[in-house]
Amino acid sequence: MDERLVVIGADAAGMTAASQARRRDRTLEVVAFEKGKYASYAACGEPYFVSGDVEELSDLIARTPDQFARAGIDLRLRTEVTSIDLDRRTVSTLSHSDGSTSETGFDKLLIATGARAFIPPMQGVDLPGVHTLRTLTDAAALRSIAAAGKGRLVVIGAGYIGIEVAEAFDTRGWDVVMVEALPSVMARTLDADLGSKVSDAMTDSGVRVITSVMVDRIEGTDSVTGVTAGGQSIPADLVVLAVGGRPVSELASQAGIPVGPTGGIIVDDHQLTGAEGVWAAGDCAEVYHRITHQMVNMHLGTVANKTGRIAGINLSGGDARFPGVLGTAITRFHDLEIAVTGASKVQAEAAGIDAVEVTVSGLTAAHYMPEAHDLTIRLTVEKGTSVVLGSQIVGGAGAGKRIDVFATAAWNAMTAGDLEWVDFAYAPPFAPVWDLMAIAARKAAAVARS
Amino acid sequence: MDERLVVIGADAAGMTAASQARRRDRTLEVVAFEKGKYASYAACGEPYFVSGDVEELSDLIARTPDQFARAGIDLRLRTEVTSIDLDRRTVSTLSHSDGSTSETGFDKLLIATGARAFIPPMQGVDLPGVHTLRTLTDAAALRSIAAAGKGRLVVIGAGYIGIEVAEAFDTRGWDVVMVEALPSVMARTLDADLGSKVSDAMTDSGVRVITSVMVDRIEGTDSVTGVTAGGQSIPADLVVLAVGGRPVSELASQAGIPVGPTGGIIVDDHQLTGAEGVWAAGDCAEVYHRITHQMVNMHLGTVANKTGRIAGINLSGGDARFPGVLGTAITRFHDLEIAVTGASKVQAEAAGIDAVEVTVSGLTAAHYMPEAHDLTIRLTVEKGTSVVLGSQIVGGAGAGKRIDVFATAAWNAMTAGDLEWVDFAYAPPFAPVWDLMAIAARKAAAVARS
Repeated sequence: MDERLVVIGADAAGMTAASQARRRDRTLEVVAFEKGKYASYAACGEPYFVSGDVEELSDLIARTPDQFARAGIDLRLRTEVTSIDLDRRTVSTLSHSDGSTSETGFDKLLIATGARAFIPPMQGVDLPGVHTLRTLTDAAALRSIAAAGKGRLVVIGAGYIGIEVAEAFDTRGWDVVMVEALPSVMARTLDADLGSKVSDAMTDSGVRVITSVMVDRIEGTDSVTGVTAGGQSIPADLVVLAVGGRPVSELASQAGIPVGPTGGIIVDDHQLTGAEGVWAAGDCAEVYHRITHQMVNMHLGTVANKTGRIAGINLSGGDARFPGVLGTAITRFHDLEIAVTGASKVQAEAAGIDAVEVTVSGLTAAHYMPEAHDLTIRLTVEKGTSVVLGSQIVGGAGAGKRIDVFATAAWNAMTAGDLEWVDFAYAPPFAPVWDLMAIAARKAAAVARS
Repeated sequence: MDERLVVIGADAAGMTAASQARRRDRTLEVVAFEKGKYASYAACGEPYFVSGDVEELSDLIARTPDQFARAGIDLRLRTEVTSIDLDRRTVSTLSHSDGSTSETGFDKLLIATGARAFIPPMQGVDLPGVHTLRTLTDAAALRSIAAAGKGRLVVIGAGYIGIEVAEAFDTRGWDVVMVEALPSVMARTLDADLGSKVSDAMTDSGVRVITSVMVDRIEGTDSVTGVTAGGQSIPADLVVLAVGGRPVSELASQAGIPVGPTGGIIVDDHQLTGAEGVWAAGDCAEVYHRITHQMVNMHLGTVANKTGRIAGINLSGGDARFPGVLGTAITRFHDLEIAVTGASKVQAEAAGIDAVEVTVSGLTAAHYMPEAHDLTIRLTVEKGTSVVLGSQIVGGAGAGKRIDVFATAAWNAMTAGDLEWVDFAYAPPFAPVWDLMAIAARKAAAVARS
């Protein structure tokens, strides 16, 4: 009899693994359970569906259940896995269509349960008009509201999703207020002074940004009417909670599969969990951070796709090693691009690395060109060696993807002294003759030596 | 008595070196001779002055003679060095202002004579209305013509400058015809199939592109009236010759300073020529190509600035080594971006390296985003090891500067197998979840192994 792979969670990691495994082993029976009504969708595209940049919800769906069926993958939507029995090699499921329960045996199991939006324990979070943005269902709801007419939005939390939701509703002409408990926006990835460039751009666009203020409660009786934050009352027709996500690992831990201090499922570099024949990938699992050498839990589409691919290769008889992450991420607020990779000085030092950092400001193009926009690069390197540890970039069009050079350098443990002389592309519409990346590297190499 | 540095040629390389040297050694007397009437200008910006993107000629001048004087540099414009006497340690000069001649002693000499536009031996090249685009004087002349009204332009030569001149006059609403003797545009840097993407974009914009056709002669009696190419008559009000440049090294060779087979002055990795106390930098000198391990002569603003910096450090008592070039370059034709780095398969094989190449096509952003444009990446790697040797990129907005990642990888002799997993930045407006750079690397790693 052919082996059966059961996949729990049919999004980026799960379906990448399922597809990869089926492609490599045509005898493998693959059953994927998804508790929601959509599978294999581009969660990162949701803010752009809310804004209207993306026309159709279906544009965000990479592959339909029919397409998966033709690829030999039995995808069961609205079917939640409620428990895993490692001894009997079965999962129990509950259908959200008809309430029926069932049991399915597996030879191999992939856990790709993802992450859920964190809902803070706060009065009013259950009121109509209070949303999160994580699933395609969430996106559809916000799109309807955004498209129905203008109103007042309060976004709670200034991380990536918060910024992108603020942009979407700002584009729609809404009055947007952002409330963040930390002293600056994007504070988990961007140093405060660079975060202030982002909040300045938001303010310039008419978004009111309130930092260092905790939300006390969400107001309303039948539906949301506002938010009280730091004693101040802010009226709202809509509230979006964007205070981060949590890995969905309870199913695994209840089955006795080890979960790490991050809340993510512990995996080795083959995505194998602590249980034989059980792999995990995506937002629910930990990953190795190449700079801090720590296991972290990151909710990034790239990581989900990559770890899914690795799991899919290994559970179908291959031998692939996931080499870890740098946590590279990018977003924008209208014309302002924000990107990070690796570790900041603070993050590196917290991991026991002696780090120095430099910050340089310049332009994305030759100063006399209309394409020239402000560009700030912070580069973190190891003291002494000048090995590149990470970078933060904030700037206009063309700024953000420069982060990939620092990611490449950090990945390869290249020194700033080497990076300084790399032959970067120059023409007036694209860079100054000394690209600011080289200036940053030169300065970092000098500071690292001193 | 203080030492005197004489600089011949006061553009990117010469003035970078002069500034660097003076900054490091305040006792150094610096005299810079420039035969033209402008110094220290951004030659690469000239096409954008012709097009009108850049408003003022002065925008292209990095530093004025007054600014150099304040920095302790005696800049003498319109003063041509006519000979170098290495034994007597003097240069002879001719003033183009008053016709006077003079002699100036030096302790140290930097030759930064640059390159001149190549004028093919062809009937009609001296006619009024036949131009090149190299100096700021050239740019000013073309700007006047471009701004005076629409007309018919024939560009001879489809290299970087040819493409940029075509774009400038196309922007101005001129009828533009490009004639190229080779079978494709940008044939020295871009493989023919990728070149055809560029010529397609030009054709779409209304530029007539004629390849594989030699220009027989330029027609006209008092001024240019057209071009005869391959027996065909093409009317023209203006002809721009853009068939490449030649290093200006006669002054050096006449003084007995060795010149290489490329026509460029031979230098070591400290920019020192074969003569004691004489350095050379910029377009007039050879440089080491890190991939082919050959000495080449490249006319690039980046190389001029970098070798000028190295020369300036070394001639003021420092010890800096120029690590060579990859020949990274970028340009655009309107919305189409074109970039190259390192060696193509053909170039690598000509240098004795066993190379393989892959070509992948995709998009610059998530497929559902308005920012998604076509993107094609060709990646060349060493057979077996998959060490990155070079890349060619053609695509829409955001395509070109991706070349810097491949430049960084090639610089550090990184393998495609490593590059495949680098944590590149992803968000829907900036890249698909697997950036095409990673797809190219994956495919190259597989082909290199096979």
